[in-house]
Amino acid sequence: MSKMRRSERIVRLTQILLEQPHRVLSLTEMADKLASAKSSLSEDLAIIREVMEAEGLGTLETQAGASGGVRYVPGLRDDLAEEFLQDVAQNLSAGDRILPGGFLYMSDVLLRPHVLDMAGKMFASRFRESGAEYVVTVETKGIPLAVSTAKYLNVPMVVVRRDHKVTEGSAVSINYVSGSRRIQTMSLSRRSLPEKTKVLIVDDFMKAGGTAKALADLMREFQVEVVGVGVFMSTVDPEDKMIDNYVSLATLTEMNEATRQVAIEPGTYFA
Amino acid sequence: MSKMRRSERIVRLTQILLEQPHRVLSLTEMADKLASAKSSLSEDLAIIREVMEAEGLGTLETQAGASGGVRYVPGLRDDLAEEFLQDVAQNLSAGDRILPGGFLYMSDVLLRPHVLDMAGKMFASRFRESGAEYVVTVETKGIPLAVSTAKYLNVPMVVVRRDHKVTEGSAVSINYVSGSRRIQTMSLSRRSLPEKTKVLIVDDFMKAGGTAKALADLMREFQVEVVGVGVFMSTVDPEDKMIDNYVSLATLTEMNEATRQVAIEPGTYFA
Repeated sequence: MSKMRRSERIVRLTQILLEQPHRVLSLTEMADKLASAKSSLSEDLAIIREVMEAEGLGTLETQAGASGGVRYVPGLRDDLAEEFLQDVAQNLSAGDRILPGGFLYMSDVLLRPHVLDMAGKMFASRFRESGAEYVVTVETKGIPLAVSTAKYLNVPMVVVRRDHKVTEGSAVSINYVSGSRRIQTMSLSRRSLPEKTKVLIVDDFMKAGGTAKALADLMREFQVEVVGVGVFMSTVDPEDKMIDNYVSLATLTEMNEATRQVAIEPGTYFA
Repeated sequence: MSKMRRSERIVRLTQILLEQPHRVLSLTEMADKLASAKSSLSEDLAIIREVMEAEGLGTLETQAGASGGVRYVPGLRDDLAEEFLQDVAQNLSAGDRILPGGFLYMSDVLLRPHVLDMAGKMFASRFRESGAEYVVTVETKGIPLAVSTAKYLNVPMVVVRRDHKVTEGSAVSINYVSGSRRIQTMSLSRRSLPEKTKVLIVDDFMKAGGTAKALADLMREFQVEVVGVGVFMSTVDPEDKMIDNYVSLATLTEMNEATRQVAIEPGTYFA
């Protein structure tokens, strides 16, 4: 490969870093790949770090020494997160989103690439120091959020099933009582999650916290430590959740089926 | 905002473009945002395009004129796609992946960020001219693949459910006969998909094609056109699938429960 100009190297480096967040990339390997001196690379990386920090996109962490490397740690500036959340809240507050039984229709919003991208960045940014080795969710609506969060943390995902599927092999199942007082089952393939690892739980919605609590109980069966819980939206009632220390991006403060009023406020993420 | 140097602008531009594939970005707006002349921006974009094409990451399409804009079209060089697929095939060919009943355990592989990223790029690259406005899948294991594909096509996703959920509002349901001869149900919320749109179907596995066929039938109920079908893996048997013109990334050519032999070859993507 012929020598690249600085501007070309910067395109390539920016792309490589953005594509592999939280992974330590060896300076020696990158210098080989780009046919450049390590000293030039270091200058390039300083420029990239400067722009990322100025734009609130996260930062680059460099490790000195012979085995020196660089790692992109995604972040999201608070004002961009707030702006995003205000847009989402406005969108979700439309009265025609209230479904019979007092449910809020949010599936369409939670399947838009921009929403998934921003929510994933927010969770990954908040839990960047958590040491999470897996992102765990339970089917179905939390899966896209978990995919995006796992992407920005650069760790694999684990999907807990509602029933035991033949395509998953031997599994551990637990029963729990949901917020609506029904007995439900959760099941996780034995081979999907190694013991003694750390996981981040991600889900779309939390009311009393029964599902998150059950997920945490299931993790205990695998001797796995839950280092955080992130939900897209939590309800203001009940105030006492079955799980503490969750991070929610939005809080549903009011939903009145008769008057078609919905009120959504920033979640504990912004507290 | 103060004027940026070229190298700084290039970091920012590369990031903006990679984050919003298939979206036409106005040169005027970008020039404002980066406090730069449009002529400088055009030079920057030429450099970025050159590197992207040389590295097989896709291309930039520019539109001239007063309303001039630029669009990042993701791609993936064939040799990188083949290398990726060989890794995956080797990994999935381990004999201990055969489950009782002749199923292949692939959930862990399909939940790794790198695998999702590459598969998403491959589908998005193959169907980039399809005009797909939504990516449609059916729960559960196709969802992460659909998230990644939808990200690179920059369109929303739609998730068909196995049963009718109260949180989805009124829905259209159909019954179909699966490959294992059982009657199954699929259900899609009425408000999740506008009529007369175009969709790309994405799923993890295809044997006879019954699920993909049922998805296509359900799309007809919404007066929606299916412009493509992408599956991660298809089986070599039966040769006659219930659906034509699908793109598979890998083909399962052999799976012998007794001898623990698994053989996987490149799919129709490479044909």
